[in-house]
Amino acid sequence: MKLYIGNKNYSSWSMRSGVLLAAFGIPFEEVMLRFDFRPGSEWNRRIAGISPTGRVPTLVEADGFTVWDTLAIAEYIADRHPEHAVWPRDLRARARARSLCAEMHAGFTRLRTVCPMNIEVFFPDVGEKLWAEDAALRADVARLDAAWSDALQAGGGPFLFGAFSAADAYFAPVAVRLSRFGLPLSDAAAAYRDALLAHPAVEDWVADAMREQDFVAEDEPYRSQR
Amino acid sequence: MKLYIGNKNYSSWSMRSGVLLAAFGIPFEEVMLRFDFRPGSEWNRRIAGISPTGRVPTLVEADGFTVWDTLAIAEYIADRHPEHAVWPRDLRARARARSLCAEMHAGFTRLRTVCPMNIEVFFPDVGEKLWAEDAALRADVARLDAAWSDALQAGGGPFLFGAFSAADAYFAPVAVRLSRFGLPLSDAAAAYRDALLAHPAVEDWVADAMREQDFVAEDEPYRSQR
Repeated sequence: MKLYIGNKNYSSWSMRSGVLLAAFGIPFEEVMLRFDFRPGSEWNRRIAGISPTGRVPTLVEADGFTVWDTLAIAEYIADRHPEHAVWPRDLRARARARSLCAEMHAGFTRLRTVCPMNIEVFFPDVGEKLWAEDAALRADVARLDAAWSDALQAGGGPFLFGAFSAADAYFAPVAVRLSRFGLPLSDAAAAYRDALLAHPAVEDWVADAMREQDFVAEDEPYRSQR
Repeated sequence: MKLYIGNKNYSSWSMRSGVLLAAFGIPFEEVMLRFDFRPGSEWNRRIAGISPTGRVPTLVEADGFTVWDTLAIAEYIADRHPEHAVWPRDLRARARARSLCAEMHAGFTRLRTVCPMNIEVFFPDVGEKLWAEDAALRADVARLDAAWSDALQAGGGPFLFGAFSAADAYFAPVAVRLSRFGLPLSDAAAAYRDALLAHPAVEDWVADAMREQDFVAEDEPYRSQR
């Protein structure tokens, strides 16, 4: 099984699937396609043959069977590996976990737009300015904080539904954004952010990202160069 | 079990969950909250107490347990009703169905933006103009046509994976848009669009929408009044 991903520094969607597989110890081959959107680049030459949507992550079985999009990949991994609690075993906790993931999948757009993932850089000054000026960003973080706090209180922590699940993999890149931009959280949400960042699968991804040192201008609204 | 929905004429996301439940004959109470975003409206007074995201559809069990977002609702219904093949029974068909739904959930943004659902109106002139001028719209429809055609060929039709599944409920509002704006499709995709529109659960939803006669300016980019 191959997981095609983009740059670990920038690709928050790739991170979700990569961290999920690593956290459950499921063997896979990671294949990185560097983000490079110039004509004739390796990305442009290869992506259409790998992903029907032209996006990463994409999971490809040895015989070519392909699953795309992080949510479908999480469900496929859960189906393929019933020995792991990829989703919480309890019906209602599972429904809540999927509600949160689906909300993340199409929501929190202001947070995603103005605080893109960029693991190697800390932007506390940018974060402070955005926080002061951007009500939509504050609303996204307030909703995130409430959603996390509700789940943590119901599940007892340290992860959203007790043990690490797909929902936590889904919020790993959000924990990175919050830490890099220094956005304020309640104590409960901050503790969860830190638990996520300290998870070995997240730490490994972050360490790889720090080593990339590959500047992609399209993903850099706040730096003109490295 | 209550399903809170918005206007049937406009709310494509509500339609996905409503059609899914109806197609499988699962009993539920439908509760419509009219789209009305003026200060003090019933929508504004009630929505925060019903949906943690402030959006519909939202499914609420008799004891108050709440599931939000169409994808999580589909998964919850599948979990709650294992007697129904809400998702295809085959592991790989299921993974493909979920890939398509997830792609729809966060994608096809140009189609969704310029061709919003508006069941009661046919806009073939608008559709023709958009088709001629909007390359991003044509790209979205080309991808949709290819995805549908692939699934139909593999599954044998008449629905995406043979029998009606959550993936078909997911594309029901898309079939409406394509028909209302008169956008061109391949023969295979057009036959599927028509099969979707002829499904009893879709026909019932459309008939209810035609009776609403409730003009919401925010959802009307092409009409200034009814």
